[in-house]
Amino acid sequence: MIVVMEQNATEDQVKSIASRIEAMGLKATVIVGTERTVIAAIGEKRGTFKDSIESCPGVSEVTPISAPYKMASREVRPEPSLIRVRDFAAGAGQVGYVAGPCSVESEEQLMSSARAVKAAGATGLRGGAFKPRTSPYSFQGMKEDGLKLLSAARDETGLAVFTEVMATEDVDLVARYADVLQVGARNMQNYRLLEAVGKSGKPVLLKRGASATMDEFLLAAEYILNEGNDQVMLCERGIRTFESHTRFTLPLASVPYLHRRTHLPVIIDPSHGTGHTYMVHDLAVAAVAAGADGLIIEVHPDPSNAMSDGYQSQTFEAFAETMKRCRKVQAALAEE
Amino acid sequence: MIVVMEQNATEDQVKSIASRIEAMGLKATVIVGTERTVIAAIGEKRGTFKDSIESCPGVSEVTPISAPYKMASREVRPEPSLIRVRDFAAGAGQVGYVAGPCSVESEEQLMSSARAVKAAGATGLRGGAFKPRTSPYSFQGMKEDGLKLLSAARDETGLAVFTEVMATEDVDLVARYADVLQVGARNMQNYRLLEAVGKSGKPVLLKRGASATMDEFLLAAEYILNEGNDQVMLCERGIRTFESHTRFTLPLASVPYLHRRTHLPVIIDPSHGTGHTYMVHDLAVAAVAAGADGLIIEVHPDPSNAMSDGYQSQTFEAFAETMKRCRKVQAALAEE
Amino acid sequence: MIVVMEQNATEDQVKSIASRIEAMGLKATVIVGTERTVIAAIGEKRGTFKDSIESCPGVSEVTPISAPYKMASREVRPEPSLIRVRDFAAGAGQVGYVAGPCSVESEEQLMSSARAVKAAGATGLRGGAFKPRTSPYSFQGMKEDGLKLLSAARDETGLAVFTEVMATEDVDLVARYADVLQVGARNMQNYRLLEAVGKSGKPVLLKRGASATMDEFLLAAEYILNEGNDQVMLCERGIRTFESHTRFTLPLASVPYLHRRTHLPVIIDPSHGTGHTYMVHDLAVAAVAAGADGLIIEVHPDPSNAMSDGYQSQTFEAFAETMKRCRKVQAALAEE
Amino acid sequence: MIVVMEQNATEDQVKSIASRIEAMGLKATVIVGTERTVIAAIGEKRGTFKDSIESCPGVSEVTPISAPYKMASREVRPEPSLIRVRDFAAGAGQVGYVAGPCSVESEEQLMSSARAVKAAGATGLRGGAFKPRTSPYSFQGMKEDGLKLLSAARDETGLAVFTEVMATEDVDLVARYADVLQVGARNMQNYRLLEAVGKSGKPVLLKRGASATMDEFLLAAEYILNEGNDQVMLCERGIRTFESHTRFTLPLASVPYLHRRTHLPVIIDPSHGTGHTYMVHDLAVAAVAAGADGLIIEVHPDPSNAMSDGYQSQTFEAFAETMKRCRKVQAALAEE
Repeated sequence: MIVVMEQNATEDQVKSIASRIEAMGLKATVIVGTERTVIAAIGEKRGTFKDSIESCPGVSEVTPISAPYKMASREVRPEPSLIRVRDFAAGAGQVGYVAGPCSVESEEQLMSSARAVKAAGATGLRGGAFKPRTSPYSFQGMKEDGLKLLSAARDETGLAVFTEVMATEDVDLVARYADVLQVGARNMQNYRLLEAVGKSGKPVLLKRGASATMDEFLLAAEYILNEGNDQVMLCERGIRTFESHTRFTLPLASVPYLHRRTHLPVIIDPSHGTGHTYMVHDLAVAAVAAGADGLIIEVHPDPSNAMSDGYQSQTFEAFAETMKRCRKVQAALAEE
Repeated sequence: MIVVMEQNATEDQVKSIASRIEAMGLKATVIVGTERTVIAAIGEKRGTFKDSIESCPGVSEVTPISAPYKMASREVRPEPSLIRVRDFAAGAGQVGYVAGPCSVESEEQLMSSARAVKAAGATGLRGGAFKPRTSPYSFQGMKEDGLKLLSAARDETGLAVFTEVMATEDVDLVARYADVLQVGARNMQNYRLLEAVGKSGKPVLLKRGASATMDEFLLAAEYILNEGNDQVMLCERGIRTFESHTRFTLPLASVPYLHRRTHLPVIIDPSHGTGHTYMVHDLAVAAVAAGADGLIIEVHPDPSNAMSDGYQSQTFEAFAETMKRCRKVQAALAEE
Repeated sequence: MIVVMEQNATEDQVKSIASRIEAMGLKATVIVGTERTVIAAIGEKRGTFKDSIESCPGVSEVTPISAPYKMASREVRPEPSLIRVRDFAAGAGQVGYVAGPCSVESEEQLMSSARAVKAAGATGLRGGAFKPRTSPYSFQGMKEDGLKLLSAARDETGLAVFTEVMATEDVDLVARYADVLQVGARNMQNYRLLEAVGKSGKPVLLKRGASATMDEFLLAAEYILNEGNDQVMLCERGIRTFESHTRFTLPLASVPYLHRRTHLPVIIDPSHGTGHTYMVHDLAVAAVAAGADGLIIEVHPDPSNAMSDGYQSQTFEAFAETMKRCRKVQAALAEE
Repeated sequence: MIVVMEQNATEDQVKSIASRIEAMGLKATVIVGTERTVIAAIGEKRGTFKDSIESCPGVSEVTPISAPYKMASREVRPEPSLIRVRDFAAGAGQVGYVAGPCSVESEEQLMSSARAVKAAGATGLRGGAFKPRTSPYSFQGMKEDGLKLLSAARDETGLAVFTEVMATEDVDLVARYADVLQVGARNMQNYRLLEAVGKSGKPVLLKRGASATMDEFLLAAEYILNEGNDQVMLCERGIRTFESHTRFTLPLASVPYLHRRTHLPVIIDPSHGTGHTYMVHDLAVAAVAAGADGLIIEVHPDPSNAMSDGYQSQTFEAFAETMKRCRKVQAALAEE
């Protein structure tokens, strides 16, 4: 942590900060410049000292040196993590493909989707049984009946089932049916839920909040890891910006950034990340080219009759084409 | 809802959309232009038809006409709502002032704060007992012990107690001690929590999510209203933008915007909205001048030793000065 | 400047950075931590060393300590600047009010506006003769004829004339008629234009670019100051964010921020800052309450027939009411 | 254009809007709903009627139906444009690769760069002779000497020369040496400059402003096209968002979006779009996978000694590897 003092900070203020730093168990080095004094605080401890120093008189700015997360950090665990559930594998060179409808709507709809995405080469099946909806007047999901259908689809196809859990009180129920628990973007900082999925022992797909910084995202993952669950996948699904021709802005630079900071696999969601069916293909292929460890894509037998997210769902045919192109790019990049 | 067709949409596609609209119970008017066809869908029903039409072949864009929320809407209830809890009153011309520490840390800290903010003119006391923290390694609050201290502070001062509830399982506990339940920005779209505070029957202070649109914010309020609880206050606490010299960007235009759309009172949080103590005063006074129905401000006996948010907390003296100026502005604007 | 090395940086890389820093005429202090090495570079020189160090092998991050601007800085000139042109005065406790139409459209329109805003208490007259328009098919302004009308309006009313200059080749012409040259948001980083208005010797109103950071804004001012022209006013007119119910997001926190960093006066534009007539009043009063040194407001005799910006222009009556309230707030805050 | 009236709009207000629309030469269809009245304005004319209607009493919102640009539009010219300059070709299935240093610094630096990027497969050479710099204290470019070096590099290598022009007064000079005139992001709305490069007859690479909407971007292109110059390439170089770990956020969804709306080729700049050398490769390959018509990449013989942008420049080796991977992806996606 580097503490930059105000230009007119007094000697006493500098001394007081230095002692606070020493009291935290860190070593303080005071550097007197011609215009300002700077104090470097160095040590093994990590923590949230920043805030407490920032409010002291005479302090202009505080810059952390170490990342605030530990277990998620590549500095702590240099090798990339591989998450494997049934035939689905993501990380360490493996690319996992998850696809399926936004919401589970019926047996017919889910089973046909599962078969189609399996045939196209997906190894994971997505489908929402508990749906967080912006409006209280929207369809809220089939709940346990939806989970049962997902489970049946897995039994037939062998696909790993990914489904969202919205509340701590549902974790046990969802964990009984699902292979991977998904935490949605709106719940990325629902800390109780993060702790609960951490305790579940199930692999977790954690979606980035629409305005979460990377540090906030990795600290949310840290909440899960901190419960002893190291099966965490990070999902970039787009951030909120001034762009209005896409629902969110999908920053593929998150792939190299996260690969450098964390060992956790990075999954890209081009459906939510764009919000328009016609863009999904291009961004899916681009994500694989950028080095993503997996994709999660909304696919529906009849998008214009979907109960949710039809405007960003691919048909079976479109998804098969996307899978084909993604595989080609994967192969091309794997060559020497 | 206005449906704009693609330029090359076929007559069949137009017909098919028109029938879908009629099937929804709305009246479809087809307007054939020289370049494009437009279909207006008019009727009493509100809902989320937009998404389902948007995914149909031939459709270019869909623009809703009615707001997606009802009970929060000024169209449904034209008179501004007044929320009154003990001496605290906000809305319909009343300005409510809530102040206190970010976190409850000790009896001494809380009681001195409560007395100081009361003396300065506040009618509400804030203080966090359950703290949502970005990092799992940060102080997470005093929990029930904190609630007991808040309750004691109310008994002595008569201030209305505002405190955050983070999870459905805590609603009953928090509601036993608090006067107003606060839903934090990170939980603005935690729908189960919204339903639970709706059912509690307690007044609710709902904070805007850092990247929530106004429609999303008002729909979150709608979840609470929909449970039969009409004691909802909306709190603007800043949005996430590219500005990095403030923690969030505080858009005071939210005040006139919300006053035009909704009858619910609008409270401004200049502490989180700026993230720097030195800015709090100016933005607090500005918020009152903009017509806010209340303020919520972080105040601490010793900000540089606060366990959280010290960098944006005012001292007792600073808060007293802010209150004085806010009152003067209120008085000046109330004159004929 | 603080240079944080990568965790696995070699000793040679550290040495190489230290010598580069010394070669720049700064003093390098190397601090070896348990996890990382940090190098503090201290000295009197300011400059853009950051970029060059950032690209060296082994470097993780570089944080500047000093602001990159000098002449605009409060550290260099601690007293607030007062800009005075005719009866208009802004800064150092004076609040200047500029109002008038977006575009000069006719003698009748301009003269009636000038008289009305003067009667309401404004000391500056705004009006565009050269209009930067998003579309090549929009009205582009009356050009020199507009300037002549502005000049005539000044002769009659004594108001200081503020008008935009869009291109270096127009600076001489516009400077012949105007009292204050306005540089628009779209031209904030048109460096040739900044140099040209700097050389003109005329006071300048510099508008913030819609996505300019504060450092970029102050460096743009520095280009003007660097030509020997210290009559610069900074105009906050809103930034581009995800909010779509306002045209831009108007961050009033810019007032305390800029007051702390720079001696230059800060003018707020609530017309462009909101983009909706009905919001202008509340934000204008709020800006004065936040401590702004001036306002610039669009006023039109008949907003619904304005050739530009009618949707954000006030009528004469509305402006008179806004002025009255702004003055009341100014008076209330000036009291002891 | 769809005009949605306020809920309490009077019949007279509706009539008045309808007559205004007819007076504009459009056909007005009034649709009376149960809650609101909507007026559809249909006709061949395009223009900026929106603003003028928006300021009328009783109007709630106005939604345009047609895009505000014409010549840039795919509706006007359905076939994709191919821009060909020497061996460089972009659009209609061709991918053009432009690379070279941020600034021209010396003969040695430029010639070695030109040879290296040519050897790696580039067909265009970038290099700044006039540099727009955020700070007046930064290196401002070699000016005409730089242009001469670029011209010499073209003579030797045959690469098409891309270089920025910052001001109308430089257009003739730059056009004498360059093959393609580049308009920088900061000048995207410098309309005089757009007109001047339009008149130059040279192909233009127009960079998107950091906070420009797509309509603003395409309207800026329209200014150039409107001068009779149809050799325009659109360059996405990242937008300003809250993300701070990249300099800008690079939205690859711009590729499918622009391909759907305009016939102009879309070039991606992964150097400015990320701001970090280590990310350039992944985003370059991803851009090709997303269907971009070209790339522009900063390459320097010794990035840590570059006079500008070293932190985002690739070495010759890195660029050669990036080219190799881009070509593989291009080939893989071209297969049936």
